[in-house]
Parts: sequence; C-alpha cells; structure tokens
Amino acid sequence: MSVTDEYLANNVEYAKDFTGPLPLPPSKHVAVVACMDARLDVYRILGLKDGEAHVIRNAGGVVTHDEIRSLAISQRLLGTKEIILIHHTDCGMLTFTDDGFKRDIQDEVGIKPEWAAEAFSDLEEDVRQSLRRIANSPFVTKHESLRGFVFDVATGRLNEVVL
Amino acid sequence: MSVTDEYLANNVEYAKDFTGPLPLPPSKHVAVVACMDARLDVYRILGLKDGEAHVIRNAGGVVTHDEIRSLAISQRLLGTKEIILIHHTDCGMLTFTDDGFKRDIQDEVGIKPEWAAEAFSDLEEDVRQSLRRIANSPFVTKHESLRGFVFDVATGRLNEVVL
Repeated sequence: MSVTDEYLANNVEYAKDFTGPLPLPPSKHVAVVACMDARLDVYRILGLKDGEAHVIRNAGGVVTHDEIRSLAISQRLLGTKEIILIHHTDCGMLTFTDDGFKRDIQDEVGIKPEWAAEAFSDLEEDVRQSLRRIANSPFVTKHESLRGFVFDVATGRLNEVVL
Repeated sequence: MSVTDEYLANNVEYAKDFTGPLPLPPSKHVAVVACMDARLDVYRILGLKDGEAHVIRNAGGVVTHDEIRSLAISQRLLGTKEIILIHHTDCGMLTFTDDGFKRDIQDEVGIKPEWAAEAFSDLEEDVRQSLRRIANSPFVTKHESLRGFVFDVATGRLNEVVL
C-alpha cells in the first residue's frame, strides 16, 4: 500500500465527522504565505479554523510570480486584507545554491531550469526580500497589514522580522 | 487588534505543548499540491502528522513554474517519492476568466500582469491539466506515484480524477 492510499483511508475517517460546506471567502480575511516544510502545520501554528484564511505554500515561503498571482486573486476576488509571511529555522533552502542545484539538473537531464531555485543564505534577510517583493508589486495592493516571521522548529514559536 | 495579532496569541499557546525539532526531510516521502482555499486543512483532510509531507499550495492548486520548482527541490534534495494533487468543489478559480481579471487590474493600476491567472471552467479537466504539466516536466522525475483528487467541500471526501 502506498502512503497515498494510507492518507486516503485517513480521509474516509475525516469525512465521517465533517460538517460543511463553509462559505468560499476567508472569514478572517487573512492570507498566509509559508514554506512547504513538513513541520509547519500552519493551521495549528496559528490556530486557524476551517474557512478563515488562504494558505499559500512553496519551497522556502518565497515570493515569486505565482505567489503574487495567488495573493492578487486572494485580495481582489476574495477580500483578504492581512498577509502573514512565514519562513522557518533549519530550512532546506539554506543548504544549497541555485547554481549548484541547476547544474546538477542540467548534468542529469540535459536541460537547465529557466527559473530561479530561490535558495538563500540568510533567513531573516530572505523574509525581508519576500516582504519587499510584495510591497513592490502593483498587483497586490489591498492589504492593511503585511508582516513576516521566522518559525522556530525547535520551540514552535513565531519570531517577527522587522523590515 | 488585527487578526494577525490574534493568531500570534494562538501561537504562544501552540508553543507551550510543542515538542521539537523533527528532522528536515519528510518522513513519509510525500509532497502534496493543493489549492490555497481556506476550507482545505490539508493536514486534517489527509491525516498528516508533523514532519511527514511537504505541502505546496496556491490559487487553484494549479501547476506553474513555481510548483515545478518546489517539487524539484522536494524530490531531488529532500527525497519525496509520491505526489498528491488536490483541487476542490466550489473553487474561486471557476468564477472568473483570465482576460477579465487582468483587464480589471490594468484598468485600475495601468499595468497588465505578465502571468496567466490560471482560471479554469472544468474542475476535473484542470486536475488532469496539472497532472500532465508535472508528467511533462523534465525537472520532476523522481516520483513513483502521481495522483489527482477533487476535495468535496460539502462532504469532506477526496474523489480521484483518472487521467
């Protein structure tokens, strides 16, 4: 049995107590951007309840075109007004370089990715970089709050990064 | 008090019972790609425990360059071997068109997004489109399983979409 099948069995149990549907727009008007890291259960870390906030995640919790796309849709079509950005300690993005990662792929499959891998060497500076990319976007302009944090995987605490 | 501040207060409570740190690589070797929708608590829907799986999310759960980047990092650097893709019923992406969305932005701020908004009109067909984009990528090649689902926001159940 694959892990996917195990998770599908879990879903059958989940659905037994499910009470839905909730409305489409996030009831707390919040959008979270966070790293994909397996240790970041964003709903638990922030105490999010079903239906409250959009959750956008990728490798690093960095802001690229696709996060701008998601945030623009979140704000313009579904009314979110606060953005919470979350990176974390012990992040995989601290362990490699774009050049090395792309060279390894090129060596193996013959094609070099045309995108940046977005590796970084300074966690807090990359939180600031992501905050600045949002602040600089002409498409994400509707928020009243934009704050960035580092989640400590050893303590479970969010520590704010000031721009 | 902002909602962000409320969530930060929740985080203080969360950290009180926190036991960490867990290892960086996902222990179940799974990567999930899902929509950012507020009603999709991916950890609960699949029964994921802390540290088991990467969770990648965006508007629609679509596969663009940034999801390919995240999946490539997930597989090549952190050893994931299964991909679970999740769209859902009552998705916001079914409610607009790329052309209209981008025209509204251009009318307001004078600049037209250079990216696709990735709206879609057929839920199951867009799951297949996302599966095909992964299958077609030269950079995401390490998985042994790739399956797509529609989460029903009325019942809590995942229904598989066959390619």
